Amino acid sequence: MTATTIEHDAMRRALDIARNGPRGINPQVGAVLLSPGGDIIAEGWHRGAGTPHAEVDALSQLAPGAARGATAVVTLEPCNHTGRTGPCSEALLDAGVARVVYAVADPNPRSAGGADRLHAAGVEVVQGVCHDEAADLLASWFTVQRLGRPHVTVKWAQSLDGRAAAEDGTSQWITGAEARADVHRRRGRADAIVVGTGTVLADDPSLTAREEDGGLRPHQPIPVVLGRSEVPTDAAVRRHPHSLLQYDGDLDAALADLRERGVHRVFVEGGPTIASAFLRAGLADEMLVYLAPVLLGGSRLALTDLGVPSIDQARRLDVARIERLGDDLLIVARPHDARTPEGEES
Amino acid sequence: MTATTIEHDAMRRALDIARNGPRGINPQVGAVLLSPGGDIIAEGWHRGAGTPHAEVDALSQLAPGAARGATAVVTLEPCNHTGRTGPCSEALLDAGVARVVYAVADPNPRSAGGADRLHAAGVEVVQGVCHDEAADLLASWFTVQRLGRPHVTVKWAQSLDGRAAAEDGTSQWITGAEARADVHRRRGRADAIVVGTGTVLADDPSLTAREEDGGLRPHQPIPVVLGRSEVPTDAAVRRHPHSLLQYDGDLDAALADLRERGVHRVFVEGGPTIASAFLRAGLADEMLVYLAPVLLGGSRLALTDLGVPSIDQARRLDVARIERLGDDLLIVARPHDARTPEGEES
Ligand SMILES: NC(=O)c1ccc[n+]([C@@H]2O[C@H](COP(=O)([O-])OP(=O)(O)OC[C@H]3O[C@@H](n4cnc5c(N)ncnc54)[C@H](OP(=O)(O)O)[C@@H]3O)[C@@H](O)[C@H]2O)c1
Ligand SMILES: NC(=O)c1ccc[n+]([C@@H]2O[C@H](COP(=O)([O-])OP(=O)(O)OC[C@H]3O[C@@H](n4cnc5c(N)ncnc54)[C@H](OP(=O)(O)O)[C@@H]3O)[C@@H](O)[C@H]2O)c1
Repeated sequence: MTATTIEHDAMRRALDIARNGPRGINPQVGAVLLSPGGDIIAEGWHRGAGTPHAEVDALSQLAPGAARGATAVVTLEPCNHTGRTGPCSEALLDAGVARVVYAVADPNPRSAGGADRLHAAGVEVVQGVCHDEAADLLASWFTVQRLGRPHVTVKWAQSLDGRAAAEDGTSQWITGAEARADVHRRRGRADAIVVGTGTVLADDPSLTAREEDGGLRPHQPIPVVLGRSEVPTDAAVRRHPHSLLQYDGDLDAALADLRERGVHRVFVEGGPTIASAFLRAGLADEMLVYLAPVLLGGSRLALTDLGVPSIDQARRLDVARIERLGDDLLIVARPHDARTPEGEES
Repeated sequence: MTATTIEHDAMRRALDIARNGPRGINPQVGAVLLSPGGDIIAEGWHRGAGTPHAEVDALSQLAPGAARGATAVVTLEPCNHTGRTGPCSEALLDAGVARVVYAVADPNPRSAGGADRLHAAGVEVVQGVCHDEAADLLASWFTVQRLGRPHVTVKWAQSLDGRAAAEDGTSQWITGAEARADVHRRRGRADAIVVGTGTVLADDPSLTAREEDGGLRPHQPIPVVLGRSEVPTDAAVRRHPHSLLQYDGDLDAALADLRERGVHRVFVEGGPTIASAFLRAGLADEMLVYLAPVLLGGSRLALTDLGVPSIDQARRLDVARIERLGDDLLIVARPHDARTPEGEES
């Protein structure tokens, strides 16, 4: 079964209105209801956890019985799961919807199965319409679903021999302008940027994503500090456009809270203690190693202890990409045993 | 003035016989004397320090006066320097040679100027015949002249985060088969291979250059151990085809002695203490960093202290080449402030 041109157009509209909803622990979903004649009779979108799903939001615009024989066009497979709201597949059946067109399947085993249920109840079901655009919109949410926590990128800059700074602590700048600009571009794509109290106290970073001229980029990540030490009242990070979040050293708890706040992508920028803690805990989905062509020697290591006692427990990486950034190298890597994130952009 | 076909052929012969001489502190040089009619009347080559230079060796085959009007075809500019032998330019003039054809100029300021002297005395001088082949033959000797010591390559294998081994000392194998084969190819091109006593005692390496099937390569580097600790009588390195040389920790003295023995290319294979000592002393002309895509953390650093107190004194490198060897990376680098070695093959 294939979708009509009218249904394609309606899906594009559904994708547009999906973006009205917040990016959060729930996906951004849009729904359009078409009369049997092909006219839009209602629209809806999901406004965040605890509020109705998009299909139900659209149905709620109509008088009882008004959706009989209608076609529901939804960006995500209607759910089959009773959570804070009832299952949408049920609501669509109750309303007498005759046909359902959706873009991407629900990846969550707890809520999937809505399409099958509708089909079994005699509803025409068409899937895969505008699949790629919908998958794009939902990519980072899918990743969060799969991981059960936000996607974590751990970034560090080091000399070729693995040092973060010279013996006296000076490190500005190990890497050059191109590498720093690359970091700012990537900050601009993250939802949160994480550092330890050590880095805050040593470097007083602003944790903003800046353009090459120093101006703020349109999208700013939320600044997050890990550790019990107090962030000074005059710290630069307190002047960030978003308010600072601070957590103690429990990484799982911090990530869970960030997820609740709709953070899908976390960018961990160090220092060495925090980067090593994420790696040791197996919480790094992606590593960005900015390698400067210098040797430093000495004791200021870019990574500290990773809990690797013996070579057969070395943390193997898959190198996804190597880029030259000016004189520096960027190595983009993932844990060797990780599944490749579907729909991830990198 | 250009060389004749007969002179070109004679130069090729001179290059062949140059190789009869030993590779040592002096260059390998060959000379052919042609009669005014173009017949070869004598040949000579340099047999090593303290023996006659090639031209003089060739002249010594002839009766007095027999070289009058002859053409001398020599692979290296005749010297102008009274060392253990008199200047060759003088000897050629005394013998009444009318024309001199040579391949490459003498790079040593103390002995150069022979061509000028011959020309000033009315001898026809042609240079640059078979230049590239002659330069190739003499490349490593030129480098030694320029550096005043053998050319030093320092090689190490490390995890991405700069460790040489896991916490318990295990490291076999950080890098994979391709990287190890590459190391053996390069050992086969070195004249000497250097390790510290620490590595000998920990790993009992054979320090041979082996083919992938484990067989010995045709050319074997001389095994050299640095340090005062005794090398055990049953150490694998004592079964090397060449006898072991051992020096205490004075790197300059060790290199000077190796040079006297005709060693042009030294391949330093560690461990971390020895590699760092060469780097700290500014004695590394080339660095080969085999980078394995693993993280290890911990305290077993691939390089220790390089005497870099502050970031502005970081040892900057020029990355000449990056190669993928299986899963590993090879970074070939040189000190940023070094002059590019002329005629060096890499
Ligand atoms: N090369 C680079 O890419 C890079 C990047 C950033 C910083 N740096 C440099 O790194 C230095 C600071 O590094 P650092 O290692 O001292 O500081 P850090 O990693 O920024 O912070 C370490 C602190 O984080 C807190 N923390 C929170 N959760 C933790 C956990 N799960 N495990 C361990 N600690 C946790 C602890 O502080 P509390 O006692 O407050 O709980 C700990 O002392 C600075 O000199 C900076 O310039 C380099
Ligand atoms: N990753 C790699 O590429 C690689 C390569 C080789 C070895 N390794 C590993 O490295 C470990 C051994 O490393 P290591 O650092 O202990 O040993 P090392 O560098 O092989 O030897 C160190 C010893 O060399 C002697 N020495 C001679 N000249 C010196 C100088 N100028 N400065 C300092 N020391 C000098 C000293 O011994 P004396 O007391 O005898 O004078 C010193 O203890 C082994 O576990 C081995 O597996 C790794």
